[in-house]
Amino acid sequence: MDADAQLILDRCDELAAISSQPDRLERVHLSKEHRAANDLVAEWMRAAGLSTWQDAAGNQCGRLEGSEPGLPALLLGSHIDTVPDAGRYDGMLGVLLAIQVAGRVRDSGIALPFALEVVAFSDEEGTRFGTALLGSRALAGTWDDAWWNLTDADGITLFEAFQDFGLDPARLPSAFRRPENLVGYLEAHIEQGPYLDDADRRLAVVTSIAGARRFALEIVGKAGHAGGTPYDRRKDALVGASELVVAVERISKERGVIGTVGRLEAFPGGVNVIPGRVELSLDLRAEFDDDRDASIRLIVEAAHEICEWRGLAFHQKEIYRADAVRCDLGLRDAVLQGIRATGDQNPMAFWSRAGHDGVAVVAVTPIAMLFLRCRAGVSHHPDEAVRKADVAAALHAYEAAVLQLVAGA
Amino acid sequence: MDADAQLILDRCDELAAISSQPDRLERVHLSKEHRAANDLVAEWMRAAGLSTWQDAAGNQCGRLEGSEPGLPALLLGSHIDTVPDAGRYDGMLGVLLAIQVAGRVRDSGIALPFALEVVAFSDEEGTRFGTALLGSRALAGTWDDAWWNLTDADGITLFEAFQDFGLDPARLPSAFRRPENLVGYLEAHIEQGPYLDDADRRLAVVTSIAGARRFALEIVGKAGHAGGTPYDRRKDALVGASELVVAVERISKERGVIGTVGRLEAFPGGVNVIPGRVELSLDLRAEFDDDRDASIRLIVEAAHEICEWRGLAFHQKEIYRADAVRCDLGLRDAVLQGIRATGDQNPMAFWSRAGHDGVAVVAVTPIAMLFLRCRAGVSHHPDEAVRKADVAAALHAYEAAVLQLVAGA
Repeated sequence: MDADAQLILDRCDELAAISSQPDRLERVHLSKEHRAANDLVAEWMRAAGLSTWQDAAGNQCGRLEGSEPGLPALLLGSHIDTVPDAGRYDGMLGVLLAIQVAGRVRDSGIALPFALEVVAFSDEEGTRFGTALLGSRALAGTWDDAWWNLTDADGITLFEAFQDFGLDPARLPSAFRRPENLVGYLEAHIEQGPYLDDADRRLAVVTSIAGARRFALEIVGKAGHAGGTPYDRRKDALVGASELVVAVERISKERGVIGTVGRLEAFPGGVNVIPGRVELSLDLRAEFDDDRDASIRLIVEAAHEICEWRGLAFHQKEIYRADAVRCDLGLRDAVLQGIRATGDQNPMAFWSRAGHDGVAVVAVTPIAMLFLRCRAGVSHHPDEAVRKADVAAALHAYEAAVLQLVAGA
Repeated sequence: MDADAQLILDRCDELAAISSQPDRLERVHLSKEHRAANDLVAEWMRAAGLSTWQDAAGNQCGRLEGSEPGLPALLLGSHIDTVPDAGRYDGMLGVLLAIQVAGRVRDSGIALPFALEVVAFSDEEGTRFGTALLGSRALAGTWDDAWWNLTDADGITLFEAFQDFGLDPARLPSAFRRPENLVGYLEAHIEQGPYLDDADRRLAVVTSIAGARRFALEIVGKAGHAGGTPYDRRKDALVGASELVVAVERISKERGVIGTVGRLEAFPGGVNVIPGRVELSLDLRAEFDDDRDASIRLIVEAAHEICEWRGLAFHQKEIYRADAVRCDLGLRDAVLQGIRATGDQNPMAFWSRAGHDGVAVVAVTPIAMLFLRCRAGVSHHPDEAVRKADVAAALHAYEAAVLQLVAGA
């Protein structure tokens, strides 16, 4: 198990070297780095005895047939795209653990009552096109054709990016999976939060995944000369946006939800020009959808108040919405038994503040997740770190969970 | 005078078409658009009877000799660079008025006790390299060799930009002017503020130019997953920066100074990533330097308080500093007489909130300025507008001011 854990860590390093940036990790949907990562992952899948293909959405897939060909599949996986300036475990570690589990099950020679499929999802973060889960939403058949017109920072549409990557947008529906061909979806992932590390524990079972909504916001004022325009004539979009950023934190804390403004830029951006326009993002998540939606209403109210007071215009556009998802009790129990097999008789269980591919996959099959500790809960940052012993424990628990499902089927 | 005003407005339109952006005006220091603008202005200078040259700093110059060759020169001028998404009169109008004044004086055949020189300064706004007045500081001999290492948004140094433009950095000192070769500097400029428009007046004499200081600020926190990182563990650089932006406005209003954050961007900029770093600018100006400096101390104190509270680091770097400059009484009187010649017996007089090339030029020769009304005081914005009758009045006053100096010499 230890040697497997070391191999997984080495492969995380190898994948992290595939980056569009010389000094930091960034690998986005349908980029040439995505292509290189898919190729490498496919090679590892084949080495584990899986037959491989890239689906019509750019997801890299590998399959181990069950006791007879064509049985419904238990999906194992995670994503291989990253945020800007990313860590090397978010997503990738889950893909590599899944490949290792599939390889170990194959090597064990156990007769499988279902097929095992590993999926390396093409887009979970939404870094390139703003809309997340494009890979898993394609697989789940919840694709929205309006997304074809999404554009990246260079103005390239998702439609064009598919073609540039060698994919045929017209063939996308062939990536959709039917519920009758699936048994469930199990994903292992770093926690991306501090709860395991604080408790000095290795693994946890996820009870549910937070609902999230994301918005592209815009505040429009009027640009003007920084010196010549008195305060009573200013329509400074940045001061308004700044008040809104502070309000997002205040409202989120009061309501016990998690609100983040991750992107903000002022235009035109001259040192001596009053900002006439600000673009900013809002990400809001909560354990319960009602709390999330109520908080968004309060934030939008605050934005309108600020903008009315300052003579600014406020525009909002929802770019992502996922309701909270409960993990399947049967699959959760398999994960729980898996963790117990590592010697932890009283596994931690909590909800995921972060969104995951399961949020999309649940549309076609039940889901569950296994979390492993990451150092200080740091994620979406190059300081992301895991311990080898925890990776070994996660592999042990993941494999035991799959075997539990094999035994129970 | 009316035909001349129309010609000047037409030429403003012609210059405004020389832009690096298809849909808006942006023309920065040492760009190929700068080259095209210099060429066009040189052509107009020659048509007015001036001999022309581009100096070693990229300033376009034209000279009309006085009654004998080599006399000290009265400088007339303004700048031809722009802010991003600029209006078409800021700077350019002053250059074109100066050319027209020089041409009219030449056509009148009056014997000049000094030479007349028109200067189209290469950089006043500082849009490209962050540091303003590079053209006029070269002319005034107050160049700082540290500036050679300034970089633009593409990482090109000022040194490299000089070379790309065809200028030899080693020859820069040849652009320096000596006080004994100069008589003074007169600049006409749109007000860039609402005082003339509010009073329904056309022209004003400037009493002094505001002192300004500009800073590049940086707030550093720690990036992290937007969902997974609880508030008590966040070091969100953007919330801290937003509190600072609000504090800049509050402190500036309280102290009667003008503080503006024109640039702000959050990094890494992922929708679902807590901002780990924010870059922002600060521009602060006041009629009196003491007020300006006291306000900056308060703003820096506020920044340190915010950052200490939030576990953030605060960095500041001064990128521009100009002390308030008083206009020369003799030159002011000439401008005053010039305005009176237009029929306005009681000209308005006030200080300029905006900085101007005179702030640099005053190091080598006395300066004065003539302001003309712009619509609603709007500047640094495509809505910048002037009336033809006001341009004609400004030309009349500008020429009369020069003739006043001729008569008094």
